[in-house]
Amino acid sequence: MIDLVKENAFIAQLVSAMPRNPNQINGLHESDAELVRIRGGSDQILAVTTDSIVEEIEQGLYTEPYQIGWMTVMANLSDLAAVGARPLGILLSETLPSDMPADQLASLQRGVREACRTAGTALLGGDTNFSRQLHMSATAVGLVEGKTPMTRKGCTPGDLLYCTGPLGGGNAFAAARILQASDAITYLPSARIREGFLLKSCASACMDTSDGLFATLDQLGRLNNVGFALDESWESALDLPALAMARKLGVEPWMFMAGPHGEYELVMTVKPVDEAALRTIELPDGRTLARLGRVTGNPGIALGGWGAFSSEDLASIRNFPLSAGENLQEFLRFLSGTGARCKTSTQA
Amino acid sequence: MIDLVKENAFIAQLVSAMPRNPNQINGLHESDAELVRIRGGSDQILAVTTDSIVEEIEQGLYTEPYQIGWMTVMANLSDLAAVGARPLGILLSETLPSDMPADQLASLQRGVREACRTAGTALLGGDTNFSRQLHMSATAVGLVEGKTPMTRKGCTPGDLLYCTGPLGGGNAFAAARILQASDAITYLPSARIREGFLLKSCASACMDTSDGLFATLDQLGRLNNVGFALDESWESALDLPALAMARKLGVEPWMFMAGPHGEYELVMTVKPVDEAALRTIELPDGRTLARLGRVTGNPGIALGGWGAFSSEDLASIRNFPLSAGENLQEFLRFLSGTGARCKTSTQA
Repeated sequence: MIDLVKENAFIAQLVSAMPRNPNQINGLHESDAELVRIRGGSDQILAVTTDSIVEEIEQGLYTEPYQIGWMTVMANLSDLAAVGARPLGILLSETLPSDMPADQLASLQRGVREACRTAGTALLGGDTNFSRQLHMSATAVGLVEGKTPMTRKGCTPGDLLYCTGPLGGGNAFAAARILQASDAITYLPSARIREGFLLKSCASACMDTSDGLFATLDQLGRLNNVGFALDESWESALDLPALAMARKLGVEPWMFMAGPHGEYELVMTVKPVDEAALRTIELPDGRTLARLGRVTGNPGIALGGWGAFSSEDLASIRNFPLSAGENLQEFLRFLSGTGARCKTSTQA
Repeated sequence: MIDLVKENAFIAQLVSAMPRNPNQINGLHESDAELVRIRGGSDQILAVTTDSIVEEIEQGLYTEPYQIGWMTVMANLSDLAAVGARPLGILLSETLPSDMPADQLASLQRGVREACRTAGTALLGGDTNFSRQLHMSATAVGLVEGKTPMTRKGCTPGDLLYCTGPLGGGNAFAAARILQASDAITYLPSARIREGFLLKSCASACMDTSDGLFATLDQLGRLNNVGFALDESWESALDLPALAMARKLGVEPWMFMAGPHGEYELVMTVKPVDEAALRTIELPDGRTLARLGRVTGNPGIALGGWGAFSSEDLASIRNFPLSAGENLQEFLRFLSGTGARCKTSTQA
């Protein structure tokens, strides 16, 4: 089931027969960060995760050194947020072109620095190498208090689905960048660390939307053997740049939830009994978490009042060979075809 | 003083003004792994380190996927060994060429797997990307028990200098590879985790020789404002491949301690009062640790019965622009010149 998605299957193959730590809590794919129980007097779980910014640089998606530095930090912190960890800090692995101009290197470091400061975390150390090509990688380490961490597993039909913020911005940014649209879209997401920490006591499952909403829900669905039904108001979960870009391209808004460039929000499920507690969590702008829908027993994603994507449809979307971005139109045509089928099949 | 070495100065510039974690024990350059005190009932220190295999791949030094996988793991575990940590596991960040043949990918993963098994540690997780070029990076996490970790700082004149094993093998391997010598040298070092753990209670300072002995001693010397005098028997610290390669190239054996390709042994200092305890530590082959020399108040490295390298000489060796390996002869000529000066200046 989980291996219908090529990336999942490939990773499973890579790690086959690798020795495991018996104190590791999460299995493969089950958590945004690796969770290891630490022996000792207190109940503490180490959360550790690594993420690289490679394809985004190579595909020309991230071109500003400041943004590359920022994203290297935030992509990792977002995985800590999704397990409710308090960050201890970041390790940076930088591979720099030998001829990188000094001002670009300064911007890159400024992006790293300001992302750390914004998230209230520290740079612990790192490793620096030189190569032909810029390659940024980082590791985030943190601690989760208590015996039960928040993972991607634990939701059951009847749970409610929430999200920390507007969706679609990552795909809108990518589309604008690929089309070299004049209306440049700012893309400097902040990891939802504070929210993740507060969520930990009430969410039944949590995952960040770094690969877009559909991939997130599809992965949660496969891991928990459930599906999701989004409320009829699902379009209001999209942010303004995504809606504007949909209009501009003449495509349907849901495609900005289906693309692979996420926005680093947290998506979480909650048992009905815990919903009231969840709704007391205040976001930095004073809003509360937005309800997206609910967990169902039907695999796939149903968009209220519109149609439904089966588990197979979602696998084919996630498996679409998106290479260097220049095949955006091809991807949109593919999504249109899939969407047309999903729409009619439930609304005939 | 520490910034006379260009790499040190460059790293200091990269991290300038970066936010720090007040619970981090080590300052910049002061430890092989980053050390962060964890609050809680027990005295525990988190040790975390990241290291990439980039230049070794690009320069054609590591060509076998198995070796690349092995070294990615061991280079990181060696940094944990140098702080006396017990490893919790490894995170792997792999950037794979899209067209990597399946058998090469399998060898790469086998190298990772067997290195983990040999070291008795686990793969916790990782991140996989695709790019034109193979790029391997990893992070090792571990725990140090007790309140006082082992770092690069703490040695004073009068301390004794020891080492876990024979030196020079890394530079001999590199020379054989660069010269495409027929006498291929096996190079699959094992991190000295067990030794590091046992050393922790008696060493005054410790560092691995990943960059070769001279760089290790030079860094320890700069951090502690001391120098080192190697015993007259220093040549016996070199391993057979290094001595054979010195003969073959017609160069002096010390050059295999001066080159930048290390052997991942641990070098440590010990107060005279703790020397007996240190000598009880048994190596896997039944030998005990080898004495190299002693810590002095004179900066630089004196080779007993041969001559002495000043702090400036050592900085110029470490700053030599070793690019793609093809300038090995140039480096050897430079070392010869430096050596001739150092030899006569003390043996006139």
